Amino acid sequence: MASWENKSTDPAVQQMLVKAERDSVATVWDRYHDMQPQCKFGEAGLCCRHCLQGPCRIGLRGGKPLLGICGATPDVIVARGLARSIAAGTAGHSGHAKHLAHTLKKLARGQAPDYTVKDKDKLQAVARRLGLFVDGHQEEEVALAVANAALADFHEKDTPVQWVTTVLPKQRVEFFQKHHLLPAGIDHEIAEVMHRTSMGCDADATNTLLGAVRCALADLAGCSMGTDLSDILFGTPVPRGSECNLGVLGPEWVNIAVHGHNPVLSEMIVAVSREMEEEARQAGAERINVVGICCTGNEVLMRHGVPPCTHSVSQEMAFMTGALDAMVVDYQCAQPAVVTTAACTGGTVVTTMEIAKITGAVHVDYSEEKAKANAREIVRLGIKAFRQRQGKATEIPPIKQKVVTGFSVEAIVQALAKLNSDDPLKPLIDQIVAGNIWGICLFAGCNNVKVPQDLNFVTVARRLLKENVLVLATGCGAGALMRHGLLDPASVEESCGAGLKGVLTAIGEANGLNGPLPPVIHIGSCVDNSRGVSLATAVANRLGVDLDKLPVVASAPETMHEKAVSIGTWAVAIGLPTHVGVVPPVLGSQAVAGLLTAGIKDLTGGYFIVETDPEVAAAKILAALGERRTALGLPTER
Amino acid sequence: MASWENKSTDPAVQQMLVKAERDSVATVWDRYHDMQPQCKFGEAGLCCRHCLQGPCRIGLRGGKPLLGICGATPDVIVARGLARSIAAGTAGHSGHAKHLAHTLKKLARGQAPDYTVKDKDKLQAVARRLGLFVDGHQEEEVALAVANAALADFHEKDTPVQWVTTVLPKQRVEFFQKHHLLPAGIDHEIAEVMHRTSMGCDADATNTLLGAVRCALADLAGCSMGTDLSDILFGTPVPRGSECNLGVLGPEWVNIAVHGHNPVLSEMIVAVSREMEEEARQAGAERINVVGICCTGNEVLMRHGVPPCTHSVSQEMAFMTGALDAMVVDYQCAQPAVVTTAACTGGTVVTTMEIAKITGAVHVDYSEEKAKANAREIVRLGIKAFRQRQGKATEIPPIKQKVVTGFSVEAIVQALAKLNSDDPLKPLIDQIVAGNIWGICLFAGCNNVKVPQDLNFVTVARRLLKENVLVLATGCGAGALMRHGLLDPASVEESCGAGLKGVLTAIGEANGLNGPLPPVIHIGSCVDNSRGVSLATAVANRLGVDLDKLPVVASAPETMHEKAVSIGTWAVAIGLPTHVGVVPPVLGSQAVAGLLTAGIKDLTGGYFIVETDPEVAAAKILAALGERRTALGLPTER
Repeated sequence: MASWENKSTDPAVQQMLVKAERDSVATVWDRYHDMQPQCKFGEAGLCCRHCLQGPCRIGLRGGKPLLGICGATPDVIVARGLARSIAAGTAGHSGHAKHLAHTLKKLARGQAPDYTVKDKDKLQAVARRLGLFVDGHQEEEVALAVANAALADFHEKDTPVQWVTTVLPKQRVEFFQKHHLLPAGIDHEIAEVMHRTSMGCDADATNTLLGAVRCALADLAGCSMGTDLSDILFGTPVPRGSECNLGVLGPEWVNIAVHGHNPVLSEMIVAVSREMEEEARQAGAERINVVGICCTGNEVLMRHGVPPCTHSVSQEMAFMTGALDAMVVDYQCAQPAVVTTAACTGGTVVTTMEIAKITGAVHVDYSEEKAKANAREIVRLGIKAFRQRQGKATEIPPIKQKVVTGFSVEAIVQALAKLNSDDPLKPLIDQIVAGNIWGICLFAGCNNVKVPQDLNFVTVARRLLKENVLVLATGCGAGALMRHGLLDPASVEESCGAGLKGVLTAIGEANGLNGPLPPVIHIGSCVDNSRGVSLATAVANRLGVDLDKLPVVASAPETMHEKAVSIGTWAVAIGLPTHVGVVPPVLGSQAVAGLLTAGIKDLTGGYFIVETDPEVAAAKILAALGERRTALGLPTER
Repeated sequence: MASWENKSTDPAVQQMLVKAERDSVATVWDRYHDMQPQCKFGEAGLCCRHCLQGPCRIGLRGGKPLLGICGATPDVIVARGLARSIAAGTAGHSGHAKHLAHTLKKLARGQAPDYTVKDKDKLQAVARRLGLFVDGHQEEEVALAVANAALADFHEKDTPVQWVTTVLPKQRVEFFQKHHLLPAGIDHEIAEVMHRTSMGCDADATNTLLGAVRCALADLAGCSMGTDLSDILFGTPVPRGSECNLGVLGPEWVNIAVHGHNPVLSEMIVAVSREMEEEARQAGAERINVVGICCTGNEVLMRHGVPPCTHSVSQEMAFMTGALDAMVVDYQCAQPAVVTTAACTGGTVVTTMEIAKITGAVHVDYSEEKAKANAREIVRLGIKAFRQRQGKATEIPPIKQKVVTGFSVEAIVQALAKLNSDDPLKPLIDQIVAGNIWGICLFAGCNNVKVPQDLNFVTVARRLLKENVLVLATGCGAGALMRHGLLDPASVEESCGAGLKGVLTAIGEANGLNGPLPPVIHIGSCVDNSRGVSLATAVANRLGVDLDKLPVVASAPETMHEKAVSIGTWAVAIGLPTHVGVVPPVLGSQAVAGLLTAGIKDLTGGYFIVETDPEVAAAKILAALGERRTALGLPTER
């Protein structure tokens, strides 16, 4: 690797990388370097290990591509691999949602006394949306009915998955029904993809991809359910301020990072840490400082203003400061390497979920029945680690950024209602029509070690903001943009075009902020991409059109996880042009690549824009928005 | 490839390979040859494509293995890959079972008029085993209750998967419960494996493998359910004779091969073909000849004596004869290459299931609601193909073997009851105790192009038969053994040791066969490995011991499909020493390989015997049986 800039554009991470090199601590960038060159077959999707006659890798022989031993074509192999990625991604998001459903069910049955229904209005709203009886029923009854409806969405029943059919415009649901794309059950679709992609089953790439699209819509269900149930259990976010980046750690504090995705655990860590300050002080600390990493971080940032210390690819850097006492992991996106980093730099990795242990970590078997007791045990591990590091040097980069966060759809609508209480979406639609908002872009997905950290996010977002695109962000994408100041209202002035600036300022002023909303509207964690869908659906319903008519796009410029592949696929399925800035393993099949980037547009209206150059990507995103504006008859001169 | 013997030990296949070379038709062996050398990383399980930072392949750097970019160790990468294979295999078997459950449900609701309950006793027996009410209820009500219970086993509920808890000895179920190994729901376990194996989740190989074992037990549920529901719908097999190998094709017949796994379709093909002889004669054929390939072939062989023309790795050879008019595929193990073979040699490939299309095949969208109409349409495609091949040369190897088949557990018990009607299992147990039966070996699994076809099966089986091991066989393993005469009672004389010969003859004579049972007892298709479990469970319950005490082993000497990985894993989980003759992709991790071949024995009593040399494998299997005999205090001198 040539320089720190080629690894990360975040100065805090750059400083830690100097320290890592000095201290001979290997990082994800070193492992990436060691892995070069990466397998060209795998990169192209032309590797198959779906049976024990393989592995097969599709090279050329006499200028023509080989076939797999079974006769599978490159198209089939690429499509099957992609489909399995989507199944895995769906399993992640929906496993998270299922966990929340069980938590809500336990709460309703009195088995999880540390949990309460924090947002009673949302519980009622979700229940009503699902067609459940609400009036005259106890809260526990409604909660139980919602939890059971959620769990029922995992298996086949007479009706398709409700967390798809009730979250999209009617036209889109009818379109999916007509094309047999409505998932019958979330786990059912995952299993079916695994079945059809096994040796000797589906050997028609288009057919496989249609099955994968149905599975990806099950992923949308998982995301939507995850958001709904988290809001019910932990409160629907409202705007609030915080700070981010490694500078939020303090040498004299017990620093505990909650890492992973599911707020089920991190909410309890946040709660008990407030009650355990005295224990921390007895250990010599000034206080307990809970910080976030990845989407668990986003969840507690959105609801409590807990500051995220970093995200995604740079998670090891939290330990490199020497000041992180415990990293508490639930599941997904935790690099197993953090155990080694912790061993080098001090600090403890605590795993908590049966499905996500890490060899070398301390495991606390978390259960909702004993939530606070387990959480206290975990916080105590942090306090113990703090004791052990007392007197040792830390190096915390003095870098942090202001963040305004908490923009649930409910909060956005409420903010807009200050402009028009009868028809809150009208001001937004009017500004889109007028061109002061050129379109909407939802940034999502991860960092990826293949991209200098945050470079693509920041480059594309800055260009779009200048062109008056309203930018929403979730997950580690929001993390990237917040580390570069774009969740700070103070940066509106330099980053936004005049039209957008006017809109953000008008909404901010109407809400008594004495200034604008931030340039980037943070709508949550990666399951909260569902909030983007909810907002787009609200706008579409208000206009009476389907989603594929709206000037709305999605972008995952540094995507890494299989979950992101699922999200991108449902984004395309619901009709959005969807940019990815890392090439997925599909280039081994012109048919598959062509279908995803062009052919599918005729079916769903959405399509993938695969573009690794962020400047070019921004231009393509703007062109896609322009095409939508033209089709709607909206002004297209800028 | 050096010689035909290195490809297949079946003379019919050898003859067709000469023809394929002469006609320049590529076969699976050519594609295997072209694929050499195969990727060493993939072979060792040291390749990971579970995120877009990869592909990662774990080579050595300075003599030490690299880590994945995320920090995943070789152990983690190998375990995750194996777990995903098991998830895929489970999805196959259970998808098959789910399809049958839907068929039974449609039947019960009057929506599938071409289906009936063929075995009313089995319906009642299964219902009672599940604790359902039977007496005083209409057949449709009981069928609906069984179908609903089956479908309920796919998702989490308050009780674990019933098709596990009701098919094993009580001790084994309690053991699984204690170790959190009972699956909560079949699809749930598949999804959970996909979740935990995604980037940043489970990074502890042992933990991942325990999750994979739970998923494999969901595969056992799929297999057991598949057997039960097929017996209910299509009849529990009883012994019958037939013939096998390519010689069962006839040049003047409309030859239609049913290929795949699920009898839902093939039963209808068999039924309508009998009604359509006149149409065939009008096309110039003497008759319609339905033959089998792979496990669909086993299903209709067991129940109707439909002759299998070939199995597994040699499926293309059926077309090479020039005499196969239609290959009707449901799902699993159909090489996509058959479409190309058919194009070269004549004949039509007909796909029938939404999840298993093949580009270039004719697709008939099969539904249970229109079963016979669809089946007639398919048979007509065969008749049409016959018309087109009239006058063209065929080359059918004049090779066929006699087969006696149809040994359901019910049939075995009934046959034993002729020796002791009060206690039918006693004669079997007595002979085991006396050493006339040294032990029991269940042969299962596929052919694999890496092994000269049938060599391992036949070598191991012949050795075991000489040593008086009672041999059961399923799936393509049964296919291998039948092609070499071992399902023909006439071969008892030359192939079996004296003790075994005496037992087989005594049972045969008592059942009025005027001779012995065949050396190898064919218990069905690959889901029918459940019949082996049922028999072993009956013996264990009769003795009051758990399965890990019995002198019973399993062997998959030429295994290929991910389903076989699942089967092998549950065989080990229920306590069986389990031989595999093809090295699975686990050698990249000493920890994983050691756990599977040794460490797990302390937990479950079962373990894998990985041995590619069939002579050595036979010796190891005999040693494993001897160890069990010793532990039981049974005579061990031979």
